Amino acid sequence: MDSIFEAGGHGGNPAPVKPIPTIVPTPTEYETLHDTGHKTLWVVFIIMLISSAVFAFRSWNIPVSRRLYHVITTLITITAAISYFAMASGDATSFSCHSVEDHHGKHIPSTHHDVCRQVFWARYVDWSLTTPLLLLDLSLLAGISGAHTILAIVADVIMVLAGLFAAYGKEHTAQKWGWYAIGCVAYLFVIWHLGVNGRRAVAARGDKTTKLFGSLALFTLILWTIYPIIWGIADGARKVSVDTEILSYAILDVLAKPVFGTWLLIAHRNIPETNVELGGYWAHGLTSGEGRIRIGEDDDAA
Amino acid sequence: MDSIFEAGGHGGNPAPVKPIPTIVPTPTEYETLHDTGHKTLWVVFIIMLISSAVFAFRSWNIPVSRRLYHVITTLITITAAISYFAMASGDATSFSCHSVEDHHGKHIPSTHHDVCRQVFWARYVDWSLTTPLLLLDLSLLAGISGAHTILAIVADVIMVLAGLFAAYGKEHTAQKWGWYAIGCVAYLFVIWHLGVNGRRAVAARGDKTTKLFGSLALFTLILWTIYPIIWGIADGARKVSVDTEILSYAILDVLAKPVFGTWLLIAHRNIPETNVELGGYWAHGLTSGEGRIRIGEDDDAA
Amino acid sequence: MDSIFEAGGHGGNPAPVKPIPTIVPTPTEYETLHDTGHKTLWVVFIIMLISSAVFAFRSWNIPVSRRLYHVITTLITITAAISYFAMASGDATSFSCHSVEDHHGKHIPSTHHDVCRQVFWARYVDWSLTTPLLLLDLSLLAGISGAHTILAIVADVIMVLAGLFAAYGKEHTAQKWGWYAIGCVAYLFVIWHLGVNGRRAVAARGDKTTKLFGSLALFTLILWTIYPIIWGIADGARKVSVDTEILSYAILDVLAKPVFGTWLLIAHRNIPETNVELGGYWAHGLTSGEGRIRIGEDDDAA
Repeated sequence: MDSIFEAGGHGGNPAPVKPIPTIVPTPTEYETLHDTGHKTLWVVFIIMLISSAVFAFRSWNIPVSRRLYHVITTLITITAAISYFAMASGDATSFSCHSVEDHHGKHIPSTHHDVCRQVFWARYVDWSLTTPLLLLDLSLLAGISGAHTILAIVADVIMVLAGLFAAYGKEHTAQKWGWYAIGCVAYLFVIWHLGVNGRRAVAARGDKTTKLFGSLALFTLILWTIYPIIWGIADGARKVSVDTEILSYAILDVLAKPVFGTWLLIAHRNIPETNVELGGYWAHGLTSGEGRIRIGEDDDAA
Repeated sequence: MDSIFEAGGHGGNPAPVKPIPTIVPTPTEYETLHDTGHKTLWVVFIIMLISSAVFAFRSWNIPVSRRLYHVITTLITITAAISYFAMASGDATSFSCHSVEDHHGKHIPSTHHDVCRQVFWARYVDWSLTTPLLLLDLSLLAGISGAHTILAIVADVIMVLAGLFAAYGKEHTAQKWGWYAIGCVAYLFVIWHLGVNGRRAVAARGDKTTKLFGSLALFTLILWTIYPIIWGIADGARKVSVDTEILSYAILDVLAKPVFGTWLLIAHRNIPETNVELGGYWAHGLTSGEGRIRIGEDDDAA
Repeated sequence: MDSIFEAGGHGGNPAPVKPIPTIVPTPTEYETLHDTGHKTLWVVFIIMLISSAVFAFRSWNIPVSRRLYHVITTLITITAAISYFAMASGDATSFSCHSVEDHHGKHIPSTHHDVCRQVFWARYVDWSLTTPLLLLDLSLLAGISGAHTILAIVADVIMVLAGLFAAYGKEHTAQKWGWYAIGCVAYLFVIWHLGVNGRRAVAARGDKTTKLFGSLALFTLILWTIYPIIWGIADGARKVSVDTEILSYAILDVLAKPVFGTWLLIAHRNIPETNVELGGYWAHGLTSGEGRIRIGEDDDAA
C-alpha cells in the first residue's frame, strides 16, 4: 500500500568499454491527469456540493422522524464532494508501476522500462462509504430485513476494497485479476441480496413502491455494472488515458449520486407508502422524563 | 507507517569550473520535538491513564443501566492515553516538507532548501474518535435527537480529517488552506447542530440541566475554537516551535477531556434529571427467556 | 502519507589508503516467507472459503430471526479468507528492520548491518475485525449486557492494534515492548469482562448453556493466550523463521475460526435455550405499514 520511489544516484568513473550498439534506456513513463481531467474533478466537486445543499434544504420542512432518506442521500453527496475536492487539489493519489519490456530487434538484448499510472485512491474511500449508504436507501425503500441489509453491505465493502487492491496489484500475479475476480463475486452477492430479497419484501408495500424500487434498482444495477467495465479497461488493462477514466467515472458518479438522490427524494414525496416514520432515539433523543427510558415504543407514548 | 526520508549521497568527479561566488547550499532544516515536548507527551499520557482509571472506578457502584456517560467519558480518556503513548514513544509521526527560497543578494541566483516539520498524525486519529464521543456526551445531556447527533458527528469527523489533510498539504496549493476552510465550515455546522438544536431540546429538561448544558457547551465551544487557532499558527503558518505546539495542545487536551469528564460526571451525579436510564440490550443483553426477544420494552418487563 | 525511500548513490574517487584489515560489510539480511509458508497461506485461504460457504448454507433453512450466530460466524471466516488471500498473493506485507552489531574481534571496529523481517499486517486488520465478532458470539451466548460487550470489544481492538504497533516498533525503545505490555493489559480486561460478567450472566440460562459457554470460553482463552506467546517468540524476539510463524498462526486461526464456528453452530442447534430470536428491524426491516414504525415491539404485533 506504500508507494516506493527509488531514485538511484549515479556517479563514479565507469571503466572504458568497447563500443556496443547504443541503446538509449527508455525513461519511466508517467500516465497522469491533464487539464481536462483536472477541470472535470473541480466541476464534479461543485455539482456534489450544490446537490448536498439542495438535499439538505429540501429536508428543512420535513419532520425529523421522516428525514431518514434525506439524511442518507445528503451524506452520500457530501462524501463524494470531499473525495472530489481531495482529488482535484492533488491529494489522495499515488502511482502504480508496471515493468514493460522493450524489444530492439534480433541480436540486441531487450531492455525494460516502468510505466506508472496515477491511481486516485480517494475514489475507493468514497465508494466504501457511499455505496453502503446507497444500498441502505434501496433496502429501506424495499423494506429488506436488517440481516440481509448487513450482508449486502459487507459484500459491497469487500467489492470496493477488492477493487482498490486490484488497482495497486502487481502485474502477472494473483494480486491484480484475483482481486478483480473477488470483487465481481462480491458484486453478484450484492445483486442477489438486493434483487431476490428486495423483490420479495417490496411486494408487501403496494404497486407504486414496487414500481419505484424496480426502476431505481435497475438504474443502480446498470450503473454499477458499468463501473467494473471501466475499471477493467482503464485501471486494469490501461487502454485509455487517465483523463478519459476521470471523465467516465465523473459521469457515472453524477448519475449514481445526485441524479439517483433527486429521483428518490421526489418520488418519495409523491408516494406516501414509502414513508418511513422513525420515532424513539432518532427523532426524540434519549428521554429522561421519568428517569426511565423507553426505546422503540410508539413515539406518541414516549 | 512512517515516512522515511533518506537524503541521497552525491559523488562523482565534477569538471573544473571557473571560480564563482561560493554559495554553500543550506541543508534541509528539521523542526522536531525536543526535551520539553517529549516530557510533556509522557506527562499527558500519565494524566490520561489516571483519569481513565478514576472514571472507570467511579462507575463501579452505579447500575449498568445508568453508566452511559461513564462509559463514553472513560473511552475518551483511554483513547487519548493510547494516542499520547504513541506520540511519546516516537510512533505515529512523520515530516511535512516545504521548499523555502534563499535570497543571496543582487546578481547571485537564489537557492532553495527544504523545511520539514514534524507532524504527529496520532492527534488526528485521537480527535476523530474522541470528539464524536464528546459530542455524544453533550447531545445525550441535552436530549438532542439521534438524527441531529449523527449529522453533528459526521460534520465533526469531516472537520478533523480536513485538519489532518491540511497538516500534510503542499504549500501554495488548494490543499493546505482549502482543507483548512472546509474544516472551519464543518465546525460551524457542529456548533449550529449542537447550539440551536441543543438549546431547544434541553429546555424540556428543566433549569438545572439547561444551566449545566449551557456551561459545558460554552466550555467546549471556547476550547474547540482555540484548537484551530493554534493549528493555524503552528501547523499552518509554522510560527512557533514543535515544543510550543505540543504544550499548547497538551493543555487543551487535558481541559477538554479529563477536566470536562470530571465536571460532567460530578454534575451528573448531583442532578437527577440528567439521568439516562437505558434498559434492553445495553443493560440486560439479549434475553432468550422464552425463546423470544423484546428489544426496547420497559426493562422491568424484559 | 507515502513512504519515500531514496537510495543514495555512491561513487567518486576515494583517495588511496594504506591496507587495513579487510572487513566485507554484511549486506542486509531479509527474513521472508519461503515455499512452506506460501503454500500454508493458500491452504488456509481455501479452508476459510469452504467454511464460509458451509456456514452460509447451514443458515439457509433457519428463519432470519434466528440467524444471528450464523451471520456473525460466517462474517468471521469470510474476513479471514480475504486476509489470507491478501497474504498469499503477496499483498499486505512490509519489512520491519533492526540494526544488528557485528563483532570482528579485538582491535577491529564493529560494523552494523540491518536485519529485516517480513511482517504481514493483514493479520492485524483481520484480527481487529474478527476478534470483536468472536467476542460478540460469546457475549450473546452468555447473555452479557451491551455495555460490557462494548467495553470488552474496545479492549480487544486496543489489544490487536497494540500488537500491530509492537510488530513495527523500533528495537530498544518503548515502542516494541511498551506496546506489547499495553496489549497484554488490554487482554486481561477482555478476560475479566467476559469471564466475570459472562459467568454471572450465563447462570440464568440453564445448565446446558452454562456448560457450552464454559467450554467455548476456555477453548478461546487457551487459543488467545498462545497467540501473544507466538508473537513474542516470532515477531518480538525473532527466534523462529517466518515460515514457522505462518504455520503456527495458521493452526491457531483454523482452530479459533472454522473449528470454533462449527462447534458453536452445532451446539446451538442442539440446545434450544441458546436461541436468540430477533424481531424488529433485523428480521422484518422498517415496516411502513400504517405510516408509523414500531421498533422493538413483539415481532408478531409489528
